[in-house]
Amino acid sequence: MEKSYVIGIDIGGTNTVYGVVDARGTILFNGSIETGKYEEINDYISALSNGLKEVIEKAGGPGVIRGIGVGAPNGNYFNGCIEFAPNLPWKGKIELAQLISENTYQIPVTLTNDANAAAIGEMAYGVARGMKDFIEITLGTGLGSGIVVGGALVYGHDGFAGELGHVIIRRNGRACGCGRDGCLEAYCSATGVARTAREFLINRTDDSLLREHKPEEISSKKVYEAAVKGDKLAQEVFDYTGGILGEALADFVAFSSPEAIVLFGGLTKAGDLILNPVKQSMEDNMLKIYQGKTKLLVSELKESDAAVLGASALGWEVKEL
Amino acid sequence: MEKSYVIGIDIGGTNTVYGVVDARGTILFNGSIETGKYEEINDYISALSNGLKEVIEKAGGPGVIRGIGVGAPNGNYFNGCIEFAPNLPWKGKIELAQLISENTYQIPVTLTNDANAAAIGEMAYGVARGMKDFIEITLGTGLGSGIVVGGALVYGHDGFAGELGHVIIRRNGRACGCGRDGCLEAYCSATGVARTAREFLINRTDDSLLREHKPEEISSKKVYEAAVKGDKLAQEVFDYTGGILGEALADFVAFSSPEAIVLFGGLTKAGDLILNPVKQSMEDNMLKIYQGKTKLLVSELKESDAAVLGASALGWEVKEL
Repeated sequence: MEKSYVIGIDIGGTNTVYGVVDARGTILFNGSIETGKYEEINDYISALSNGLKEVIEKAGGPGVIRGIGVGAPNGNYFNGCIEFAPNLPWKGKIELAQLISENTYQIPVTLTNDANAAAIGEMAYGVARGMKDFIEITLGTGLGSGIVVGGALVYGHDGFAGELGHVIIRRNGRACGCGRDGCLEAYCSATGVARTAREFLINRTDDSLLREHKPEEISSKKVYEAAVKGDKLAQEVFDYTGGILGEALADFVAFSSPEAIVLFGGLTKAGDLILNPVKQSMEDNMLKIYQGKTKLLVSELKESDAAVLGASALGWEVKEL
Repeated sequence: MEKSYVIGIDIGGTNTVYGVVDARGTILFNGSIETGKYEEINDYISALSNGLKEVIEKAGGPGVIRGIGVGAPNGNYFNGCIEFAPNLPWKGKIELAQLISENTYQIPVTLTNDANAAAIGEMAYGVARGMKDFIEITLGTGLGSGIVVGGALVYGHDGFAGELGHVIIRRNGRACGCGRDGCLEAYCSATGVARTAREFLINRTDDSLLREHKPEEISSKKVYEAAVKGDKLAQEVFDYTGGILGEALADFVAFSSPEAIVLFGGLTKAGDLILNPVKQSMEDNMLKIYQGKTKLLVSELKESDAAVLGASALGWEVKEL
């Protein structure tokens, strides 16, 4: 029987979503369980494998599944473990890939972190099809990254490469959740946008629609809505955010000289409001030999499906026996 | 006949040095010509190939040579050309690899820039033997880099990856030769050390042996000699330089999570004066998941031979027919 499908699993702090995916990136059957409901890893694994078995039966049984790919916070590609993931209920080091495989017909399981999974999905089904060198930047609550060099994801010697959200972009700058100061993620992420808006509102006196909200209620979505209505302060929040992101991207280009940088995630919904300043700043800050050569693209993966698709793409890496 | 040797050529602005190298990294026969003497590229090529033919004869003839590797400023691995190298006499784009091959028994020629050649040499014969993920940082007049990921050099989509000397480490900082401000190279290089010393001498009033020299006479070597004699200001120049380099290395680790960072070149002769502050600052600035995992090493390649050895290692990449 031909193994013509893969399974993608996206493990988030709230939900675990999974689906059977074909070679063109169509999700044929899917399902989900609540991650947070299972305090014991064994209970979680058995609920997950029950769900997986259901969609596998619908697809035609385990014989048609080539491999399972998992995207999980702090997931390590080399050992198939998740380690000390702050938003998951299970503490310490969990041998997740092995546990899932053992409980799901011994189908081979490959695991990586969510941003790497997005990059692999982009290469398999998205805007980076056929590219050998690109960087995927995920702009969500935080800033994640997956780096592809010569057609392969960069894992580094320990599986933890590609934490570009924690490059220092402002020495002694904003406090970051990682315990250090000035990380890119503290500026260029949904939470970074909200922080910038709050700072602008405190330090400036000009009118803004955002002044209608309590500071703690300001979100990147509210900043976007105000900017679309023509609010100058809100627009300048995006200029500021995009300007800093462009500075960082120019530095990343000096590292791996990618054909493209692909932006993915919630913040990209702001469209040209954020993309124009990113593009401008990236070119302005680039070393001359790189200018005008690296494309700035927005992901073509639908956000609702991207995590599952990205993880599923890892399933193709399994060698057919 | 077994092709058991390679040839390395290092093209510098002043001299071009070449040698026949065996698989253990021993230079068996060598020679050199003056690069600057040949204003016409064709004259240069014929002088070079005459020199090469001499050492090839000594080694046993063209049948024993597997390939020729060339390290040259602005050398591009993908097209074998040097392009707009400011310190070489020939302007525009020169098809160097092809010209050398045509004039030297059609032996295959591979070309890259000098820092990449150093990284390849380190992997073949140096302290990075057996490593799959490391970054070579060359600390000379400028700061160059060669990045190895998964056992292969990172070239990027255009062959120009790895210009880490031009990552911005101080926004709106020192003017750099590249036309931008705040590049790492403007601080962490031989010229950067001399600039820092001059700044310290102007901005401070404490005694220093360096005050005996005219500002324009101060070199990194003089700063080193003063520091060794216990001069506090000179020692603080190295602390400052190493501190900034460590900050940058911590960011580089977040990119490719290398097993080691290998420092190479003139500045490393300052030993612990520079290495201790680099190590300290790199660990202090590192994201927690990386701390204590990336080795900081000094190249084992003899500087006089390194450029030729590094370039020669490219010669092994040629597939045996």
